[in-house]
Amino acid sequence: MVASMEPIAPQTDSQELRSAYQRVRKTSELICEPLFIEDYGVQTMPDVSPPKWHLAHVSWFFETFLLKPYGEDYREFHPEYVRLFNSYYEQVGVYHPRSQRGLLSRPTVEEIDAYRAHVDAAMLQLIDSGRAEADTRIRERLLTGLHHEQQHQELLLTDIKHILGMNPLRPAYRECDLPEGMAQPLTFIRVTGGLKKLGAEEHGFAFDNERPRHDIWQSPFRIAARPISNGEYIDFIEDGGYQRPELWLADGWAAIKAGQFHGPLYWENRDGQWWHYTLGGMQPVDPHAPVAHVNYFEADAYASWAGKRLPTEAEWETAAENLPVEGNLRSSGYLQPLAPDTIATGLSKMYGDVWEWTQSAYGPYPGYRQAGGALGEYNGKFMCGQYVLKGGSCVTPADHIRRTYRNFLYPADQWQFSGFRLAEDL
Amino acid sequence: MVASMEPIAPQTDSQELRSAYQRVRKTSELICEPLFIEDYGVQTMPDVSPPKWHLAHVSWFFETFLLKPYGEDYREFHPEYVRLFNSYYEQVGVYHPRSQRGLLSRPTVEEIDAYRAHVDAAMLQLIDSGRAEADTRIRERLLTGLHHEQQHQELLLTDIKHILGMNPLRPAYRECDLPEGMAQPLTFIRVTGGLKKLGAEEHGFAFDNERPRHDIWQSPFRIAARPISNGEYIDFIEDGGYQRPELWLADGWAAIKAGQFHGPLYWENRDGQWWHYTLGGMQPVDPHAPVAHVNYFEADAYASWAGKRLPTEAEWETAAENLPVEGNLRSSGYLQPLAPDTIATGLSKMYGDVWEWTQSAYGPYPGYRQAGGALGEYNGKFMCGQYVLKGGSCVTPADHIRRTYRNFLYPADQWQFSGFRLAEDL
Amino acid sequence: MVASMEPIAPQTDSQELRSAYQRVRKTSELICEPLFIEDYGVQTMPDVSPPKWHLAHVSWFFETFLLKPYGEDYREFHPEYVRLFNSYYEQVGVYHPRSQRGLLSRPTVEEIDAYRAHVDAAMLQLIDSGRAEADTRIRERLLTGLHHEQQHQELLLTDIKHILGMNPLRPAYRECDLPEGMAQPLTFIRVTGGLKKLGAEEHGFAFDNERPRHDIWQSPFRIAARPISNGEYIDFIEDGGYQRPELWLADGWAAIKAGQFHGPLYWENRDGQWWHYTLGGMQPVDPHAPVAHVNYFEADAYASWAGKRLPTEAEWETAAENLPVEGNLRSSGYLQPLAPDTIATGLSKMYGDVWEWTQSAYGPYPGYRQAGGALGEYNGKFMCGQYVLKGGSCVTPADHIRRTYRNFLYPADQWQFSGFRLAEDL
Amino acid sequence: MVASMEPIAPQTDSQELRSAYQRVRKTSELICEPLFIEDYGVQTMPDVSPPKWHLAHVSWFFETFLLKPYGEDYREFHPEYVRLFNSYYEQVGVYHPRSQRGLLSRPTVEEIDAYRAHVDAAMLQLIDSGRAEADTRIRERLLTGLHHEQQHQELLLTDIKHILGMNPLRPAYRECDLPEGMAQPLTFIRVTGGLKKLGAEEHGFAFDNERPRHDIWQSPFRIAARPISNGEYIDFIEDGGYQRPELWLADGWAAIKAGQFHGPLYWENRDGQWWHYTLGGMQPVDPHAPVAHVNYFEADAYASWAGKRLPTEAEWETAAENLPVEGNLRSSGYLQPLAPDTIATGLSKMYGDVWEWTQSAYGPYPGYRQAGGALGEYNGKFMCGQYVLKGGSCVTPADHIRRTYRNFLYPADQWQFSGFRLAEDL
Repeated sequence: MVASMEPIAPQTDSQELRSAYQRVRKTSELICEPLFIEDYGVQTMPDVSPPKWHLAHVSWFFETFLLKPYGEDYREFHPEYVRLFNSYYEQVGVYHPRSQRGLLSRPTVEEIDAYRAHVDAAMLQLIDSGRAEADTRIRERLLTGLHHEQQHQELLLTDIKHILGMNPLRPAYRECDLPEGMAQPLTFIRVTGGLKKLGAEEHGFAFDNERPRHDIWQSPFRIAARPISNGEYIDFIEDGGYQRPELWLADGWAAIKAGQFHGPLYWENRDGQWWHYTLGGMQPVDPHAPVAHVNYFEADAYASWAGKRLPTEAEWETAAENLPVEGNLRSSGYLQPLAPDTIATGLSKMYGDVWEWTQSAYGPYPGYRQAGGALGEYNGKFMCGQYVLKGGSCVTPADHIRRTYRNFLYPADQWQFSGFRLAEDL
Repeated sequence: MVASMEPIAPQTDSQELRSAYQRVRKTSELICEPLFIEDYGVQTMPDVSPPKWHLAHVSWFFETFLLKPYGEDYREFHPEYVRLFNSYYEQVGVYHPRSQRGLLSRPTVEEIDAYRAHVDAAMLQLIDSGRAEADTRIRERLLTGLHHEQQHQELLLTDIKHILGMNPLRPAYRECDLPEGMAQPLTFIRVTGGLKKLGAEEHGFAFDNERPRHDIWQSPFRIAARPISNGEYIDFIEDGGYQRPELWLADGWAAIKAGQFHGPLYWENRDGQWWHYTLGGMQPVDPHAPVAHVNYFEADAYASWAGKRLPTEAEWETAAENLPVEGNLRSSGYLQPLAPDTIATGLSKMYGDVWEWTQSAYGPYPGYRQAGGALGEYNGKFMCGQYVLKGGSCVTPADHIRRTYRNFLYPADQWQFSGFRLAEDL
Repeated sequence: MVASMEPIAPQTDSQELRSAYQRVRKTSELICEPLFIEDYGVQTMPDVSPPKWHLAHVSWFFETFLLKPYGEDYREFHPEYVRLFNSYYEQVGVYHPRSQRGLLSRPTVEEIDAYRAHVDAAMLQLIDSGRAEADTRIRERLLTGLHHEQQHQELLLTDIKHILGMNPLRPAYRECDLPEGMAQPLTFIRVTGGLKKLGAEEHGFAFDNERPRHDIWQSPFRIAARPISNGEYIDFIEDGGYQRPELWLADGWAAIKAGQFHGPLYWENRDGQWWHYTLGGMQPVDPHAPVAHVNYFEADAYASWAGKRLPTEAEWETAAENLPVEGNLRSSGYLQPLAPDTIATGLSKMYGDVWEWTQSAYGPYPGYRQAGGALGEYNGKFMCGQYVLKGGSCVTPADHIRRTYRNFLYPADQWQFSGFRLAEDL
Repeated sequence: MVASMEPIAPQTDSQELRSAYQRVRKTSELICEPLFIEDYGVQTMPDVSPPKWHLAHVSWFFETFLLKPYGEDYREFHPEYVRLFNSYYEQVGVYHPRSQRGLLSRPTVEEIDAYRAHVDAAMLQLIDSGRAEADTRIRERLLTGLHHEQQHQELLLTDIKHILGMNPLRPAYRECDLPEGMAQPLTFIRVTGGLKKLGAEEHGFAFDNERPRHDIWQSPFRIAARPISNGEYIDFIEDGGYQRPELWLADGWAAIKAGQFHGPLYWENRDGQWWHYTLGGMQPVDPHAPVAHVNYFEADAYASWAGKRLPTEAEWETAAENLPVEGNLRSSGYLQPLAPDTIATGLSKMYGDVWEWTQSAYGPYPGYRQAGGALGEYNGKFMCGQYVLKGGSCVTPADHIRRTYRNFLYPADQWQFSGFRLAEDL
């Protein structure tokens, strides 16, 4: 369904930039192809954005950070869009409230398509002029814009799942046959410690929050060979996991008592059998596939119940040191976590399937300095109250993820494809 | 734009019923014709329903109260719709939460069109069978269903105005040239008192809340010849009306301090000039047209400021005793209150233009008994906390309104075309 | 426990005024005598005020409306009190938020006692000067101030019940032996209709909302001989009253579903037996005593269940036309509704025991004009969204209640001693 | 005002335990001596507890964790107290809601004094029996109980400040003359890095969250010689700090826009001059004293404005390595941060004056395992969403604080004596 592509490297010529730009932009549109017009405008909760808003916002990003400062004689598409499609960049100006994105019947999908075409024409002109290749600032912003759009491609699928999955009719996004598989008994892999490096190298594309690369002292530890499966999570539920306060962080237990969650998102128990909504519609929960749509509180409570703990970000990154970046990512086309199809030796499913919660709060690396200007708001201002997740999921673009990538979510968030693997001290 | 029709009388034969049914159903669809697909699904606040929800709900009404009990071999269109499109009938069963109607991207507009066609075919079959003509219960429910759909036609226009008017792009529903006019200085008409009758006669269609007709004792009074105009309301604003607590009911003043309203809905002051959103887009406020989209608190505060009061429902109905039911109703096609186009002698604009707030709390008439069964929930259960409005507005179907008609709204409501006229004691 | 007194008449000489003033002021203090210092400061919900706030506010009323305008060389007790103890008089100035009255540990009870003594000395000086007797404005304000303090005496007992009754320890306010009694089977009394007068005569003390006296047309009706008893209300509960939406007003059913009430306030079911908190502590519910602490929704739902309705205010006042103002009022000392101690013929318990909900929304009588100035805010600005209750309760001062007295509460309110009697059409 | 004491060491004999117990218990009572009875019951926000609740809760701690399991024939003081004075120990059972502690007029202060005396008698009996000296479990719980009561002594002063400081009368807790001082220009001290140890040694008393002591890799850094002063913070305010979103974390800026804070708690600008409420009443803000009552968002925004950052917990602890634990703690008796009284060379004010925000999220140290049972809930379940603060404040008991001590607060909290010092990379 979605086009595959090579990772976008910083050193690229105009022709490669043109090709990458077109590939990324086209992919966003392909993701929306199965939708009806009605699906493009709905916002089922403040965290979710309507698909058409995503399509417009990523274009706004190119317009705001490339075309307006660097475009030649660029003509703004619509004077109101600077406000409507700004997500959170305070330095760009006042913006439409996040929670009200679903109230905008206008602009229509057709108008947003026209907006995209307008931006594309100007962007390709900028690329073709050779200035993006020649001017580091332009090229870096262009690469950031492409990776930004890839992040929103993941959000598009995440949010489409919520929009369709919250609908009482539970319509499928698209049908898909899944391969069968089986989870082996859980084992732990020993990882040696010592002085390690954390974070992204100087060269190659990375977001600012992955840098600077720095030294850390790591104790030896053991990490689970694979993520916790649905079947294991059902054991936790059936052992009264959601009724035992001693297993939970205080904020998590308060949220349970307030009725804010009561199991993985999308799960329903029908006559004793667990079902869940997937992008392929309602399906029985496969006990062998990794559990998804659990929040940090659930991951942590499961670990307490199992007598283990979550890994730190540094442990995850250390363990992944020599692993290839491959797995059940968006390019596999399944769009849901899969049961293991082979008997793995060593670590498996580190990339793809589910984002893995770590016990590391999302904060700045030593030496991190937020960039000036509105683009500096991209990552740094969210370094409070969130946790780091690693490894990408079944809806992450394969050329977007890397070992040092830091996803971050609030501990109560469930709507992304979030799971976890356990760790323990030696 | 919208078809005109004769009032639907209770005594009608099958042919007339067929014709009335088709006319009413067609009109709902014509009202939605200027919309884009995107406009059909939005809910800008809990009081507003998405247009496609209105279109489905009125069909649900026929399906639930006529086709299911009386249709021959009627086949339900979709098993989930009984829940999705039930507005508030507790005795029909659990229903989709009102505030979440805007989260339903599915069913699509096309599916709802098919639902309407399915219901129409079965309804016409029922009518053509002669049973609606022959069976009083069926005929009465059919008439109720038609009047019910007419109420939702008014709501469609009211809610479309909100959906488009809350959009920062302020798109017009459709363009329309308005006739010019001029409001004469405000005068008051004396009405004599004595023993009067209030409420609807036994014969003819009326809702249950308009009955039984009963005696009341009316003191003589004076009532304003026309509603308060925009220009007069601007005088109130400019005299500090919204900063003077002594003019306001306590609940109204608390709402102002909480920022819940600060002037008529849709009004904007641009550089000292008042503009407002209309179904024809943003326009300068015409000082000669009746003020609309004010709530009860505003109507009452204006009356205090003017040293007058609002009329009671009985006074309004007494004053309207011999007036023809005509005015700037939906059939005029303007879809907004108009400045007077003639120099009237006596009462003018009692029907049409704006619903007029009365000081009468909405309650049961002496001898009122709520009907049993789910249809009994139509009106009676709302007799608490609301006020009666009279006379219909510029979006009310001409064959739907009558002197005894009782509209009712909460005192903070602004989104309907609500205005007011003053009264005073002798 | 509480001193008895003759009704305070408008035509009184200085000596009588002095005596009435001292009696009323002393009574407020006697009511608080059983309290601990800790009880004086608590506010268990926004509707409740701490006892010490009541004691200060009634003094503030005399200070603000009598001593400051009319006192000779009156010296304000404390410059901050004008703000702290203003309840809701916008024209007096900004006031301490109602919901934060319970956060004020200072002034202490002792300081408020000193404030009362300071105001008393100045008030007695004003009375003794003969100016209150001579000057109608002063005398009327003084009488209003005394009736105002009596209203707060009722609120003191109501609020003390809430403060102690919400405490998990359920401490008694004071012990009291109750007489036994028995409710006779419910009968209805026929009342003839015709042209009637409603409201208070010109002479004698009455609040502004009881006037002007005016004509109404009353149809004949029947009214229950006594209020509904606890035993009858238990039948309603046990018949599933709180699970049957068809019995409830829409707003009431929504409040039940939101968990806002689930039975009379203070009731607890312990092993199948109903208990309730009273000012004498936890007691088994007496099936023969009138039900209390029900809101309008509950009264209305019970009436629907019983196939009856609530009376209107005019019906209640018509029925009470020739009844003496006597009953289980505060002066009886029981401070809770009692089972009937005699076999009554005709109407019983119209005064005392419980305030009786009517189906009449609280609004202005024809010809009512709110007085100018801050004192005009006393009653008029609350004429929205509330219902009238009649007859006084077991905590109402005997010399404070009268046939035309209009108490008013929001339909969800339960914390006052509110019950109801039924009515029906002929 | 408050007694001084030696740090309570784990290895103590019965006589020392008795003495320590009596000293700690007595101190809590001395802290409350200046209060009126009215002050003991108020809860000005959910984070604040009424003083009498603190006094009871610390007794409940001894009763629940020592007397009930280990006391000989211990008789519970009151069966309801297990619920009323349980703060958050889920495994002990259901507890009174935190936000409703201020609604409890009963038990009275006198009853709580009796509860304390009852617990004290039983505790001294347990100590005198020699079992606390002999049984490690008992001795450790006893020490924990004493340190727990010391934590609540700090909270008592913090909460008393809020109770009196939110009161419009702004009463002083007690008067106190302050020494004068002067802040030197801000300098930074270089600290060398390398492999360091973080956390508490095995021996000596420490809370579980301070262990295990473990290795970390620390880069060299520079840390400010003293905390930021009021004068420096005023510069930030006057430079538009609260109007510049680029300086703020996203959650902090959202909180400012929602009106949740707008400057240090207790600050008021009177005619251009800054005043603040202190335990000695309203005072002009001393520009030389450390700023207090700022939240994490404010500390972080100031650091952004200054081009610096906050230190990590490891940096703070590394920098404090050889410093004596002394400073303006509770024992100095001033109960507010002081301007420096000497010209310091090197780090000053690391202990006392203000708790210092670090940029370290509060989480478990490597190898941390939460203890089983209810006491395990003491610290571990709060390891989510909070930040670590170091060094103690002007209301911290001198024998309670240590270098490895980890205080933790939510980033929006202002009501504790929280300030900060800056750091920077080399």
